[in-house]
Amino acid sequence: MVQILGFKEEFNRIKLNMKNEVNLLEKNGIVPHLVVFLIGNNGASEVYVKNKSKSCNEIGVNITVIRLPEDIDCCALIDKINYYNNDKFCDGILVQLPLPKHIDINTVVFNINPAKDVDCFTPYRLGKLCFLQPEDLIPPTPNAVIYVMDFIGIELRGKHVVIINDTILLGKPLTQLLLNMGATVTVCNIYTTDIETICRSADVIVTGVGKPDFILDNRFCRKGVAVIDVGIKEINGKVVGDVNIDDVDNASVVTKVPGGVGLLTISFLLQNIIKIAKLRLGHTIIEYGQMQNM
Amino acid sequence: MVQILGFKEEFNRIKLNMKNEVNLLEKNGIVPHLVVFLIGNNGASEVYVKNKSKSCNEIGVNITVIRLPEDIDCCALIDKINYYNNDKFCDGILVQLPLPKHIDINTVVFNINPAKDVDCFTPYRLGKLCFLQPEDLIPPTPNAVIYVMDFIGIELRGKHVVIINDTILLGKPLTQLLLNMGATVTVCNIYTTDIETICRSADVIVTGVGKPDFILDNRFCRKGVAVIDVGIKEINGKVVGDVNIDDVDNASVVTKVPGGVGLLTISFLLQNIIKIAKLRLGHTIIEYGQMQNM
Repeated sequence: MVQILGFKEEFNRIKLNMKNEVNLLEKNGIVPHLVVFLIGNNGASEVYVKNKSKSCNEIGVNITVIRLPEDIDCCALIDKINYYNNDKFCDGILVQLPLPKHIDINTVVFNINPAKDVDCFTPYRLGKLCFLQPEDLIPPTPNAVIYVMDFIGIELRGKHVVIINDTILLGKPLTQLLLNMGATVTVCNIYTTDIETICRSADVIVTGVGKPDFILDNRFCRKGVAVIDVGIKEINGKVVGDVNIDDVDNASVVTKVPGGVGLLTISFLLQNIIKIAKLRLGHTIIEYGQMQNM
Repeated sequence: MVQILGFKEEFNRIKLNMKNEVNLLEKNGIVPHLVVFLIGNNGASEVYVKNKSKSCNEIGVNITVIRLPEDIDCCALIDKINYYNNDKFCDGILVQLPLPKHIDINTVVFNINPAKDVDCFTPYRLGKLCFLQPEDLIPPTPNAVIYVMDFIGIELRGKHVVIINDTILLGKPLTQLLLNMGATVTVCNIYTTDIETICRSADVIVTGVGKPDFILDNRFCRKGVAVIDVGIKEINGKVVGDVNIDDVDNASVVTKVPGGVGLLTISFLLQNIIKIAKLRLGHTIIEYGQMQNM
């Protein structure tokens, strides 16, 4: 019997912890502050930003949404990002994707101060994952996946993880993190031949395709495999993941969509902001001592 | 019949091309300059640095070897690196590994200016591989492996490459490069169970273990697989790779050790230095125009 995992309770629990952390920071005069750039009028982006705002408000993180017109010039956008790169009261900067077609995503993202890059899209942040230190920022989606693996109780050393996604949002950074932990990792993409066979050799499958014609079912699953669903798409007005939950009998565990990894992703975005804000304590050593005694 | 590939001729051909490039740069008043830090008295390091010096001299690249005592303080070493980080006549900086035990490798390497990091060990350089541009530096060993694949005529899109090495020298950066090219990639390490079975699903095996007890033979090879040997070890005073060349009948191609990928690695190190030196042309636009007309 396959176990279907949702993370609503975990999400609430993590949020409560973060709220306490933010409270402690506030007592030291620090209010974590996220700046989101929202360009043009993309319906999905509006929803994503609204959700982020809601979560920020719930735990006491300040959020500023900078709305800019669809036809904004790339240099003008970078200028505005630069302002916050140097603003000591801004902890995190996030550029909501997708961007209008005339703007090169990389040019924009590479201009985010890596120290404030809560999505970990900058080269420095991605490369730093190879040498991960506790104080480092971790990209929210891969971090959520690792959290789920730990939640399920998977000891990663020696396990074979197959990731169906080769982007900088998921597959590329997750590979580095899993290799750090001693896992054997296979990354598949749209060119992979015989993806079912590869998946049937996995202890854990992480799927993040999100396309209507891709459905992960029992053909991909050997007995006992854990399946972590990071796919998201709309079918007949309903949000679903990559996995056909009615046909994965071989799996031991499958994560829900919605209510699964996506929820945790928001938590880990917030956690990055708090992590950065905490660095401000370094500049106020006396208050840090006081905080420890609280 | 398995084909055994060496790259001595390729090495000489590439060197000749580079010599011509360096000549053109010299006519513009630019002599590419590599600075190597050699700390303590490690016999193997001495040999490696000697080989690099020889190749640099052959193609006209200046090389300065800074010898420092075994007991040098970490900060003193970083100070010396910093001098060359800011020296406009130094194009590339290389810290010969291993370092004495009291010095943290990452602390040292992270202080190399990423723009001069010819080995691509800094986080920025590693992360930049996810967004590779023609002008970017590429780590020499992974670059040599990609070159060999191209030399053999492997169309990487859709191919399954298994890499037996998960370090920042080979497995981690090579994965990013191969994913950029549409390959399916599996990375194995010392914890991988049933490595033979995983290898038997590969179109290409890249092996970089270099330990006496690891021998790659026919058990790992399905019919027609290409095997690229990046392993290096000494057995009874003889330098050998990971592959037992006498027992890989199933393979279509195997690369030699010595005389294989290692030779090409030196070429791609030199190519990085030249790439950086060429950027100096950006500061002398008129000469660049003259150079194009030569």
